[in-house]
Amino acid sequence: MPSPLSKRILKGEAAAAARLMRDLDDGVPAAAAEVRHLYPRAGRAHVVGIAGPPGCGKSTLVDALVAVLRKEGCSVGVVAVDPSSPLSGGAVLGDRIRMQRHASDPKVFIRSLASRGSLGGLSRSVFDTVTVMDAMGKDVILLETAGVGQDGVKIAGAAHTVLVVEAPGAGDEIQALKAGILEVGDLYVVNKRSQRGAQRLARTLRENLGGKPVLLTEALTGQGVNELLRAIELHRRSLQRGSGWEVRSGAMARTAFLELVETGFRESLLGNPLCKKLLSDIAARRSDPYSAARRALRGL
Amino acid sequence: MPSPLSKRILKGEAAAAARLMRDLDDGVPAAAAEVRHLYPRAGRAHVVGIAGPPGCGKSTLVDALVAVLRKEGCSVGVVAVDPSSPLSGGAVLGDRIRMQRHASDPKVFIRSLASRGSLGGLSRSVFDTVTVMDAMGKDVILLETAGVGQDGVKIAGAAHTVLVVEAPGAGDEIQALKAGILEVGDLYVVNKRSQRGAQRLARTLRENLGGKPVLLTEALTGQGVNELLRAIELHRRSLQRGSGWEVRSGAMARTAFLELVETGFRESLLGNPLCKKLLSDIAARRSDPYSAARRALRGL
Repeated sequence: MPSPLSKRILKGEAAAAARLMRDLDDGVPAAAAEVRHLYPRAGRAHVVGIAGPPGCGKSTLVDALVAVLRKEGCSVGVVAVDPSSPLSGGAVLGDRIRMQRHASDPKVFIRSLASRGSLGGLSRSVFDTVTVMDAMGKDVILLETAGVGQDGVKIAGAAHTVLVVEAPGAGDEIQALKAGILEVGDLYVVNKRSQRGAQRLARTLRENLGGKPVLLTEALTGQGVNELLRAIELHRRSLQRGSGWEVRSGAMARTAFLELVETGFRESLLGNPLCKKLLSDIAARRSDPYSAARRALRGL
Repeated sequence: MPSPLSKRILKGEAAAAARLMRDLDDGVPAAAAEVRHLYPRAGRAHVVGIAGPPGCGKSTLVDALVAVLRKEGCSVGVVAVDPSSPLSGGAVLGDRIRMQRHASDPKVFIRSLASRGSLGGLSRSVFDTVTVMDAMGKDVILLETAGVGQDGVKIAGAAHTVLVVEAPGAGDEIQALKAGILEVGDLYVVNKRSQRGAQRLARTLRENLGGKPVLLTEALTGQGVNELLRAIELHRRSLQRGSGWEVRSGAMARTAFLELVETGFRESLLGNPLCKKLLSDIAARRSDPYSAARRALRGL
């Protein structure tokens, strides 16, 4: 039986969804139960992961994609995972401000998540947020991460379609080929296509990607963004023609499960009396991390 | 009682250290025991973490630092955490090739680690590698990560001194202030100082860092690298004057402990029969990740 709050979320009410997300942030236990109830009712949204190095224009591109999606009548969720800290709040704001033009659109739901931790990766809040937006009935959910290294690779387990964004000047070409991104993407975008080096970067990517689509965009003016959306659509359809959609959805569920278990373990770890004792032993140099870890793994 | 291999490592023998690291890679259980035995004999090296976005010239700067450190008679370890994939081996090589001039120097030990996983962060192999190099008697260990987002922030728990490298053009100024880097660094470097925007970037950083040192370098030519090394030295001395060195070392041990426990948990998780059953339930849609995670956390 869905709760009154869940019912409102399933009707697509933004205020109800925002309320639940706030409760999740505050660690209200009832909120976690709510997400569990919403999960079986979700599963329709097309989750598009967007990764790329800082400075490649990812946020601007997401903004442009939202505009095009809205023109086509789609409702959109945006989850922006920001590696920002509280102290640099101004900088985040500067970034997010571009999204303001969609803030008053009831068919667009935007949520920024700070990737807080010293431990762990895509936090469980990413999965919770996607589930809630999905349950709201969003057609497309854009999941944006500052994807270099781990974070960028992880997105592959959390989306149906993975978009990798690059730009000339945001690191040299060798960098563009790093970070496991040759495997991780379904679609590649060279943004800032009017800048010097864009065509060469696209060529290098094409030579190394073995046939995966490489598109050129200029997110600031919207050039190429319609074509990009068509390529995203095409990818969704190719997934749905075969078993691809089910396979990806299964992988997403698997990733979410492992993340939830690991987050749960991590949370219980720091509160565990044995772990507390071992940490104080380490601090007092009565033990070393290797011996302490062995004892913790035996004792837990 | 140190084993014959440990004895050779403690004498600084590179071949022995390389052998142990290979065994660690292969998951040889005796190798893990060896690291446990080396740990209490390590703890002297100054671990310098180096983070920064792709394209800022981090690897070149590390190379230049090695050259200056060698000139001053220090032995050096380099741990480069590469977010590269097997397929892009060529690109990694391109990057690492700059270090070749130090490859034949017996006082320099270089080790590249791929940050493989879809889960987890600074892998336990980082801590193992640092421990082995420390036990070898390296004076300084440079720990380089592609530090944007999580990976970049994590380095703070794994080093005595954290260097954050930026460069003009490798993302705009707003980006430079993101990723929690204002908190994470002890020293800031604007590399590529002869490029347009370098002075302005340094000014912006200075305005936002509340007195932390901001240095300008040109890693390719070595300009400013002597001054950088002096600043690193100064930081070490300031740590050693007070309790800073102990505090940092303690934090590093704590990070290593938590990482070892989490890695151990993760490894046992995927082999656990309950977890296997839950994963197949999820795949068959008999369960959802939320319910399955609850059951896993209860049952484990």
